[in-house]
Amino acid sequence: MESLIPFFHPRSVALIGVSTKTGLQAYNILEQVLAGGYRGRIYPVNPRGGTILGLPVYRTVSEIPETPDLAVISTPRTAVPDVVRECTAKGIKAIIIITQGFADADEWGKQMQQELLETVRDNRTRIVGPNTIGVVNLYENLNTSFIGFLRQKADTAMICQSGIFLVGAADFTGGIGLGVDIGNAADVDFTETLAYLGQQPQVKVINLHMEGLKNGRRFMEVARRVSRVKPVLCLKTGCSESGARAASSHSGSLAGDDNVFSAAFKQCGIIRVRDVEEMRYLNKTFLTYSSMPGRRVAVVTISGGAGIMAVDACSNCKLEVAQFSEKTRQKLAAVFPGWMEVNNPADIWPAGMARGYLEVLELTLDAVLDDPGVDAVLVISPAYLDPEEDPRLDISPIINGIAARYPDKPLALWIFGGYRRELAARLEKENRVVVYPSPERAMASLAALYRYLHAIKNQTSPSPPLFSDMQMDQIGAILDKARQAGHKTINEEALEIIRACGIPVLPSRVAQSAEEAVKIAGALGYPVVMKIVSPQISHKSDVGGVKVNLTGAQAVAEAYAQIVDTVSARAPHAAIKGVLIQPYRPGGVEVILGSKRDPSFGPVLVFGLGGIYTELFRDVSFAIAPVDRDQALAMIRETRSYRLLQGYRGQLPADMEALVECLLRLGQLVTQWPEIMEMDINPLLAGPQGAVAVDARITIE
Amino acid sequence: MESLIPFFHPRSVALIGVSTKTGLQAYNILEQVLAGGYRGRIYPVNPRGGTILGLPVYRTVSEIPETPDLAVISTPRTAVPDVVRECTAKGIKAIIIITQGFADADEWGKQMQQELLETVRDNRTRIVGPNTIGVVNLYENLNTSFIGFLRQKADTAMICQSGIFLVGAADFTGGIGLGVDIGNAADVDFTETLAYLGQQPQVKVINLHMEGLKNGRRFMEVARRVSRVKPVLCLKTGCSESGARAASSHSGSLAGDDNVFSAAFKQCGIIRVRDVEEMRYLNKTFLTYSSMPGRRVAVVTISGGAGIMAVDACSNCKLEVAQFSEKTRQKLAAVFPGWMEVNNPADIWPAGMARGYLEVLELTLDAVLDDPGVDAVLVISPAYLDPEEDPRLDISPIINGIAARYPDKPLALWIFGGYRRELAARLEKENRVVVYPSPERAMASLAALYRYLHAIKNQTSPSPPLFSDMQMDQIGAILDKARQAGHKTINEEALEIIRACGIPVLPSRVAQSAEEAVKIAGALGYPVVMKIVSPQISHKSDVGGVKVNLTGAQAVAEAYAQIVDTVSARAPHAAIKGVLIQPYRPGGVEVILGSKRDPSFGPVLVFGLGGIYTELFRDVSFAIAPVDRDQALAMIRETRSYRLLQGYRGQLPADMEALVECLLRLGQLVTQWPEIMEMDINPLLAGPQGAVAVDARITIE
Repeated sequence: MESLIPFFHPRSVALIGVSTKTGLQAYNILEQVLAGGYRGRIYPVNPRGGTILGLPVYRTVSEIPETPDLAVISTPRTAVPDVVRECTAKGIKAIIIITQGFADADEWGKQMQQELLETVRDNRTRIVGPNTIGVVNLYENLNTSFIGFLRQKADTAMICQSGIFLVGAADFTGGIGLGVDIGNAADVDFTETLAYLGQQPQVKVINLHMEGLKNGRRFMEVARRVSRVKPVLCLKTGCSESGARAASSHSGSLAGDDNVFSAAFKQCGIIRVRDVEEMRYLNKTFLTYSSMPGRRVAVVTISGGAGIMAVDACSNCKLEVAQFSEKTRQKLAAVFPGWMEVNNPADIWPAGMARGYLEVLELTLDAVLDDPGVDAVLVISPAYLDPEEDPRLDISPIINGIAARYPDKPLALWIFGGYRRELAARLEKENRVVVYPSPERAMASLAALYRYLHAIKNQTSPSPPLFSDMQMDQIGAILDKARQAGHKTINEEALEIIRACGIPVLPSRVAQSAEEAVKIAGALGYPVVMKIVSPQISHKSDVGGVKVNLTGAQAVAEAYAQIVDTVSARAPHAAIKGVLIQPYRPGGVEVILGSKRDPSFGPVLVFGLGGIYTELFRDVSFAIAPVDRDQALAMIRETRSYRLLQGYRGQLPADMEALVECLLRLGQLVTQWPEIMEMDINPLLAGPQGAVAVDARITIE
Repeated sequence: MESLIPFFHPRSVALIGVSTKTGLQAYNILEQVLAGGYRGRIYPVNPRGGTILGLPVYRTVSEIPETPDLAVISTPRTAVPDVVRECTAKGIKAIIIITQGFADADEWGKQMQQELLETVRDNRTRIVGPNTIGVVNLYENLNTSFIGFLRQKADTAMICQSGIFLVGAADFTGGIGLGVDIGNAADVDFTETLAYLGQQPQVKVINLHMEGLKNGRRFMEVARRVSRVKPVLCLKTGCSESGARAASSHSGSLAGDDNVFSAAFKQCGIIRVRDVEEMRYLNKTFLTYSSMPGRRVAVVTISGGAGIMAVDACSNCKLEVAQFSEKTRQKLAAVFPGWMEVNNPADIWPAGMARGYLEVLELTLDAVLDDPGVDAVLVISPAYLDPEEDPRLDISPIINGIAARYPDKPLALWIFGGYRRELAARLEKENRVVVYPSPERAMASLAALYRYLHAIKNQTSPSPPLFSDMQMDQIGAILDKARQAGHKTINEEALEIIRACGIPVLPSRVAQSAEEAVKIAGALGYPVVMKIVSPQISHKSDVGGVKVNLTGAQAVAEAYAQIVDTVSARAPHAAIKGVLIQPYRPGGVEVILGSKRDPSFGPVLVFGLGGIYTELFRDVSFAIAPVDRDQALAMIRETRSYRLLQGYRGQLPADMEALVECLLRLGQLVTQWPEIMEMDINPLLAGPQGAVAVDARITIE
């Protein structure tokens, strides 16, 4: 991580390929570095030499009289490889490559990027970019942007893959302290910079703008550590492309990358933001409030109608509408008109008309914030009047006074009317309160604050258990056999792997003839289920390959013939390997337990409603494997089908512990055997007596 | 509707109870009427007489030298009844009651409000309010607010139940033309004012802020008419309270009021907005754009990363990412660097760096808007620089020029950076384009525009068919019998009503003994289903009251005993009326067809996934009954279960026409028999050969 220091705190900077033009049309980095007020030593490099903006220009890097801490390259892309070689020769350890046209462009660009990495590898020189706007450190007046911007300082950090988030930081995050555009992330990546910024004490909130991620597991480890200390927000983009990557099998099509990112973020404490507006307001929220004892919100409003809107928003965000104490009610009843019921939301307008709006507001807020049953307050007040000209609705002195008296409870505001921005600016000047543009935005922000403080901050890391009774040899042997035979999918033997893994499996045997089927059924005991066995057929019931509840020998013999006939007719190119026979177990809930290897995060677990409705309702949850007991339970609870397992409509509840153990064991399996690309246990029958796998399928590398 | 004219266009106004205080702390309506520049005759009334702000004050209404068009009452609530009587005696036909404390408050207030209505009834005098801020007509400089506000005129109208939407209109709707706060809506209501404002040609967009609605059917008729001509937006609040009103039965608990409002709005062309920010941006959108040929959007962006965000947003809103024509590609390829692929989104920064940003922007926009495969454009551009000081990123002249050249295709913008507001103000000055604060907001607004123009504007009204073969006498007789017997629910005979209604019903008979059961089963033909009959039991399978696929006499006899035993044990207080026997029909999709009487809208149809999963997945759609063929089909298509009906996983598709007819007939039934409070056909088996009702339940008044 020390290797990142020169990017953020260089004592000297070489600007290579700096424009000789200056002024409006120049996009001159030197001009911006100077305009920012950077105090380090600056070495412009341009083959033409001379001076630019009063500074001597060096023709080559080698001419520079010292070894600069940082080099910023903005030459045409064809020149970049040579310049990088010059930099490493000079001993420069930190290089920013602004230039576009590498892995972001054509084949040649991709190849050049690879070569750059090889050039710097031996020298332990680090690269940010290519295709970046570089870094920002407004604590030290440093920025490597080629265009000017509003350098608004705030205690936030940004790691992005598009320069707009640095240069537009005043808008996106309300200002910035430290930031880096990792661009193509050829070398310096999210994980390292997140770890670095996590350790900078002046940074209070870290933002990520992420298009893709390599080595998601290492990233998660770091994010888990950092998010325990400060909020990490992430705007993940490119969601729609991933949705288009439809996969062929169940958990394949379900584990769309975007769901996996959401699951991973949740597991490592990252707060996902949906758009730039949410990013803006959550930054404000986390920079302003640092405490919220519980989820009970009071609403103090100038309008009953607006109060209703706040209550709607409150319950949509799973916050609670606070119940006022008797003492609070009495305090308010003494001021409110007799015909009004004192309630939360507290509509202060009628009392305000009679006794003065500002006085009633202050009195009400004092009473409400003093109430131990209130954890946060939303004030709804209008900006009808220009606060410069008419102070009647300028609540800013009162609000800031009250907020200072109750620092442990967030005092949030929704302000509306023609002078909203003017009044909001006054209110927010002391950084004690946040003004939101709607009650929905206010409540969602308070809900995120509450979640961060109580479910992410200071949380311990999960510790997945390790089962020692898994039959590793047997699993390895089956996988080896399949690989040696050149098989990509394991069908019949999948259940053996599941069994070896310690998950109960319904007995099953394959018959090659009607006679054999009858024999097997007799041995297993009636009633039985029969299913086609064919490597080409994954959705067996779709082609008439399944018969259930067969109660006798005749039924089994007939079913054998029917299955073979129907499947042959409907899937003429499928090779039929026989018919599988299992005991018929009605009842229990059919769930799916699966796994999929994600390009960013590796093995991902999938849990959800099984059977033929899996794809229809997509009632599934995801987690990066392995998981611990709490995470497994959370995966189950997250689905709607959880209600089925709790004993829906008169059924006995399923054995939740057994189900959790299946998820833990599956997590260990797919983590230990990286060749498993995809697997589904579908259905796993979850009943009061435990869980049992009925059918399974595994895809290997 | 003529009776509303004096509210919006009074030639003279009596202000009754006007404050004698003036200045900042006075909340003096007279002061605001004068400040607004109203040109009509004004008659202040206050028992103290004298003059206020230079106008003579009348001691009573009777003293006023003419009959004013409009009276505005703001006395204490105890004085209101007498003042209203004075007004009617004077012959005043339009009264606004500002005063609070009527139906919005205690019992006495409710009673007083009722008395006010009785006072005015004989005189055909109309009341707006009580508990209102009155009216706004900025075309005639009229407003009855007691507090000043930014009187920003725009061609929008507002009907609200909270004055904040009038006084804060500059913020909520970007200004206002005509508006009324109907407050408690004791007399003048949403329907009348919507009809009135629909006919005002200067009004381009109508907004509603709605807390509740009486006579929803009449409102829908008017809304359907008005929305064909101009967009009607509605912010419906109070959603969370209704969610809490949990009802006991299926469609009861499903038809939560809020879903019903959403369905009603959809049916009558009202665009529902979720929050005040959406209201603000949709008003801007509809005031600015009036054409959008299709749903194909081009994105022209300064940042590739931002372009990805726009694509995500585009697909989330069900708009399409446009495919550029070969001609467009060639035009752009001539300008873009060779290593770049020309694509939508068009990332113009690399070309802009080389050739000048503004030039490349203009050229690209011209090429893209000229492309017949593009229906709208989103421009993503930064506001890093203060446009006052540095014109490099001031795209406003180019954007407005281009927008003028292509008036049929919306040119929308997302602008970001520290000078966002300054640049947005320049861009929007000519009212040709809208600047949105995020790509999500931009795409959602374009999607709403597209939907309004192509699915609401100029649409014809639906015409539900009327089936003449429904056996009304028989239905009436069953309902009468139940009512006379004092029954609230109809169980066994519900299927007879369904059959009389023309919906196919599975044969069924009730047995009182195992012997009778065997006889009935033999007559119906094996296999059969058996179900407990008890008025106290609605979820039969929950108490062990259902057995399926019984294939012979012995099984039926045993099942009879088991059902009676199990139900007696699990539901000891239920009176067992026998066991119902039906043929067992496996296959087909179990759907629910239901209806519920809504307090605002009357009979509402419910369609969705049936069986035991109805409550779990709540995969249901709603429509106000009756429906026409298209609406019925839309209800079916709206559910996820539609995929089941299309022939999911190898099944044959269900007979959709049959299902549609069931919905049409059910709609006619519940519309013609208002005593039906709730009914469910669950399940209705939908298969390739048609649909057949298996079980039903009806609740009557």
